Amino acid sequence: MQTQTANPVTPSNQSTESLATLARQLRIDSIRCTTAAGSGHPTSSMSAADLMAVLMVEHLRFDWSTPHHPNNDRLIFSKGHACPLLYSMYKAAGIISDAELLRLRKIDSPLQGHPNPHVLKWVDVATGSLGQGLPIGVGMALNAKQVDHLPYRVWVLLGDSEMAEGSVWEAFDKASYYKLNNLIAIIDMNRLGQRGETDLGWHGDIYAARARAFGWHAIEIDGQDISEVQKAYKEALAQVDQPTVIIAKTQKGSGVSFLANKEGWHGKALSADEEKKAIAELGTPTSLVFPTQKPENLQPTGWDPAATLTLPTYALGGKEAARKAYGDAIAALGSADPTVVAMDAEVSNSTHADEFKKAHPKRFFEMFIAEQQLVSAAVGFGVLGKKAFASTFAAFFSRAYDQIRMAAISNATIRLAGSHPGVSIGQDGPSQMALEDIAMMRSVYESTVFYPSDANQTVKLVALMAGVKGISYIRTTREKLPVIYSPDEQFKIGGCKVVRQSAQDRLTVVAAGITLHEALKAADTLAKEGISIRVIDLYSVKPVDSQTLAKAASETNNKFIVVEDHWEEGGLGDAVLDAFAQSASRPVIVKLAVRKMPGSGSPAELLSAAGIDAGHIVAAAKKLA
Amino acid sequence: MQTQTANPVTPSNQSTESLATLARQLRIDSIRCTTAAGSGHPTSSMSAADLMAVLMVEHLRFDWSTPHHPNNDRLIFSKGHACPLLYSMYKAAGIISDAELLRLRKIDSPLQGHPNPHVLKWVDVATGSLGQGLPIGVGMALNAKQVDHLPYRVWVLLGDSEMAEGSVWEAFDKASYYKLNNLIAIIDMNRLGQRGETDLGWHGDIYAARARAFGWHAIEIDGQDISEVQKAYKEALAQVDQPTVIIAKTQKGSGVSFLANKEGWHGKALSADEEKKAIAELGTPTSLVFPTQKPENLQPTGWDPAATLTLPTYALGGKEAARKAYGDAIAALGSADPTVVAMDAEVSNSTHADEFKKAHPKRFFEMFIAEQQLVSAAVGFGVLGKKAFASTFAAFFSRAYDQIRMAAISNATIRLAGSHPGVSIGQDGPSQMALEDIAMMRSVYESTVFYPSDANQTVKLVALMAGVKGISYIRTTREKLPVIYSPDEQFKIGGCKVVRQSAQDRLTVVAAGITLHEALKAADTLAKEGISIRVIDLYSVKPVDSQTLAKAASETNNKFIVVEDHWEEGGLGDAVLDAFAQSASRPVIVKLAVRKMPGSGSPAELLSAAGIDAGHIVAAAKKLA
Repeated sequence: MQTQTANPVTPSNQSTESLATLARQLRIDSIRCTTAAGSGHPTSSMSAADLMAVLMVEHLRFDWSTPHHPNNDRLIFSKGHACPLLYSMYKAAGIISDAELLRLRKIDSPLQGHPNPHVLKWVDVATGSLGQGLPIGVGMALNAKQVDHLPYRVWVLLGDSEMAEGSVWEAFDKASYYKLNNLIAIIDMNRLGQRGETDLGWHGDIYAARARAFGWHAIEIDGQDISEVQKAYKEALAQVDQPTVIIAKTQKGSGVSFLANKEGWHGKALSADEEKKAIAELGTPTSLVFPTQKPENLQPTGWDPAATLTLPTYALGGKEAARKAYGDAIAALGSADPTVVAMDAEVSNSTHADEFKKAHPKRFFEMFIAEQQLVSAAVGFGVLGKKAFASTFAAFFSRAYDQIRMAAISNATIRLAGSHPGVSIGQDGPSQMALEDIAMMRSVYESTVFYPSDANQTVKLVALMAGVKGISYIRTTREKLPVIYSPDEQFKIGGCKVVRQSAQDRLTVVAAGITLHEALKAADTLAKEGISIRVIDLYSVKPVDSQTLAKAASETNNKFIVVEDHWEEGGLGDAVLDAFAQSASRPVIVKLAVRKMPGSGSPAELLSAAGIDAGHIVAAAKKLA
Repeated sequence: MQTQTANPVTPSNQSTESLATLARQLRIDSIRCTTAAGSGHPTSSMSAADLMAVLMVEHLRFDWSTPHHPNNDRLIFSKGHACPLLYSMYKAAGIISDAELLRLRKIDSPLQGHPNPHVLKWVDVATGSLGQGLPIGVGMALNAKQVDHLPYRVWVLLGDSEMAEGSVWEAFDKASYYKLNNLIAIIDMNRLGQRGETDLGWHGDIYAARARAFGWHAIEIDGQDISEVQKAYKEALAQVDQPTVIIAKTQKGSGVSFLANKEGWHGKALSADEEKKAIAELGTPTSLVFPTQKPENLQPTGWDPAATLTLPTYALGGKEAARKAYGDAIAALGSADPTVVAMDAEVSNSTHADEFKKAHPKRFFEMFIAEQQLVSAAVGFGVLGKKAFASTFAAFFSRAYDQIRMAAISNATIRLAGSHPGVSIGQDGPSQMALEDIAMMRSVYESTVFYPSDANQTVKLVALMAGVKGISYIRTTREKLPVIYSPDEQFKIGGCKVVRQSAQDRLTVVAAGITLHEALKAADTLAKEGISIRVIDLYSVKPVDSQTLAKAASETNNKFIVVEDHWEEGGLGDAVLDAFAQSASRPVIVKLAVRKMPGSGSPAELLSAAGIDAGHIVAAAKKLA
């Protein structure tokens, strides 16, 4: 996008009058660009125009030519649908032209219907799924205060409707716990949601009481009174150990008589006639450019020194749990790289993220039982350049699937580790068993999905994750399992390992994690009966090693058994099926997967009950061979 | 499970002394059954023993022989890991034997590691994923107050750790909004989470302030002082327009010196020696049976009369959106069946659930932008026998995937409708586009997944959903599309429609929803060039019609193109691949799906950019044919 400086009329001071001029321009432009697009959210933009006018001119320290400047304040439009206002601010900052603004929502315009960092360099994260901006802001503010020790601030504009999202309250809780005085939330309380009034309407006192009870400094103002807005920001910046929320009473569609505080105008562009009438009330369109605040130019301080990377190893033939290897691996990565951070949702002694906490306590962040906040914090760290690892039970990442989906849209790089997958966790029962996590994670845009079978492999895969772009996921088994790979075995993204093979193999069993060990037991049993089988460790579930699978198919009579501790949909079986979708020669694929609701019992009992243990593999192999 | 009445020593009055006797028995039994199991949560059970002793004897109106009695109070252990306490209550109520209790966590015992209604008849819902009990309780309490007009109460026992889950605050918000004075939350504030102190520790005043700010009546007590507990329950029951939360200060492991308020005891069973020492402190084990309160015997009142079912119809050749047909259909179902209820997350004018709201305002529940609460409320209604339909944008059901997963474990029947799927929504951009919803919903235990292509079909499928057990999902397209089925066309679960066919078909295109219409356009174009193709409408994505697919494969040269407005993983393509997994004769399957991050644009532009419009189908067909 070209920068232009049309009509560079620079107000000589930040007088209330010049701010009002800016707010008026922002309102007019929000209307103009949505009318040009034929869709969008002018009225939700207009309500926050005064709030953003003051912020942009008086406080937002942002080097527009260097959006990733480490000292830039961050601004998140959590109410992403109000992006016509954000884009109008870009025009007022002189970084996009009026013509560019008017290409809102066109197929090749970076100004999409909601902010998207895939195409727009001035935003850090995608918004549009409500209630996610503040939790991400918590991650960014933690990065500023506890890792980089930089004075930048994180400003989050929220709609009042999204205050109903629980994720927002997870963020309120964590922000005060961590005393994030560099985090300022601005609630554009315009009273009207998509289809009517919000549950709290204009009861700013209730929002304020809730925020205070959650440990925040709360300020109630008239969000359309510029001097009140100015005063509120100053008060927010004076806080020393509390985050601040400004509850700004506004009117949706403010400034235009037939829009202001009227129902039925959510997400509607004005017609050409309506636009004309609205602008007649607001004044002639302008393309004024306003001065903004520059960031400081400080380097991060207080980083730990970087040691040489020494990954943990485990003795071949011993036993260890993949989750323990995960903890050891991230601790080692953290020693070698001061930009590695880790967080967990109150189960770090189960996921073994506590190994990182012990080694690098200042870079470990406890998110308590708040999985949405967990993932959002990782996104906040990730988009600011940190290598963030977030862990919880694999089952509970389902609590944050929307956040993971949105992280991919944000072009964020985050690393997720889900422990305790499958029925093999045993006695705790199905609520704690992830049986859909692979399906969930495979269906994330450009994701990488690993499922290791032993401790040395886990370490190598975690080390690979440190370098993977996008969303990566590792499924770490609870049980201690035999170490079958030597510490110098190599693994790669999109690879697999042929663990057993001979020229006499009558079929191939594809497995990963705990079922790989069941497959090896089955191979031993079958070998005694003279039946030779190939066994493949599909540790990289996405991307999948189609080539090795194809070779195995052609060499083992086109007969496959895929066995997995996961529901039958979306897991290893489907990944293997997909690898052969277009092949002329394809194996028959017998899927052994969990098909009945599991209960409590020993891991061995549950693997058997699910039909995915060695005995069932032997039986399936005999039937297929 | 057999009922027994071992040692039926019935205390003659509910004196503090007899309640203390019960609490002691509950503590001892919580220890005994977990030690017998070798795992589980004795200490998290012990902290709530006094709270539950008083509740069970003095207030919980429950007919143990008729767990689904419509007048029974509901009791949800949101802290599901404390189920040793719940099961010990069953023994104290005389409905399970001591021997049965001691089979906790065994493979064939109904007493699983977390409560599971699949095998345990006295619980309504599965818990164990924290923070879900209270939102489900909101649905149950709404059912009591607004639909059935029955005086039962909903008691929810929460752990203090789970107060960090945003879903809990969604429930706090909705419960006060709907003035649910029949909902009583009991927070077992034992200070200790899994790996250390909770973020608020014993600061009951902070929990109370938060609850009050969220509109609740809050009571702080010593949760181990029986008279304080008695007083608190009475105060809770006196509330007329507010839900009550009792913040009970307790000690994890209370009653045993080496457990009480000690770290390192979460989720650990005592050894035999430790058990002996603990019981030496607590007293001799007993098997006393205590009297409990009976429910009233009232019938639901105020139900709407049931009219004859008249489903809406749409003229063949016209145009309508599936989402509108969804709204019309549930409105019609609601007229015929007073047990149909609907809820939505602040987008009812987009999902068209507002058609139901207009027709049946008393049975429509606005959940505002709180998708977790939306699904949990549906579960609450569902397990109490209501036919609950919950709708939002398909993308935003990803916010509640854990709740959906748990609903399946709860054996609940709920119906979900996700509108605005795929790139075809157009200008709003990727944050609003569901591109993983089919993957997500297919991977739910015993789920049913529909994806209709026209309005009449949508209506028929919604009517089928009313009779489907378990989790069903319908994906309702935003765009108005041609009506291609007559109103008397029949559809079935697990069916599909061959929409175009001839003896000369050179390949088959499988599609659903908007891509079916693209496939039909492609068929027309190809027909002009003398290329005849078969077109299948795969409206039932799970279960899938393997038979019709196999017939098409054999009749069309084993060549398939599957085209879908969804990521390439987990959608129609994978459903079709799976149908042929074990077949000797299998088609080559070319998947046309979304593979690049979409942006904003017109629906036609975005379908083209994703490579899933008629033009791309034509090109793929020519290449394959």
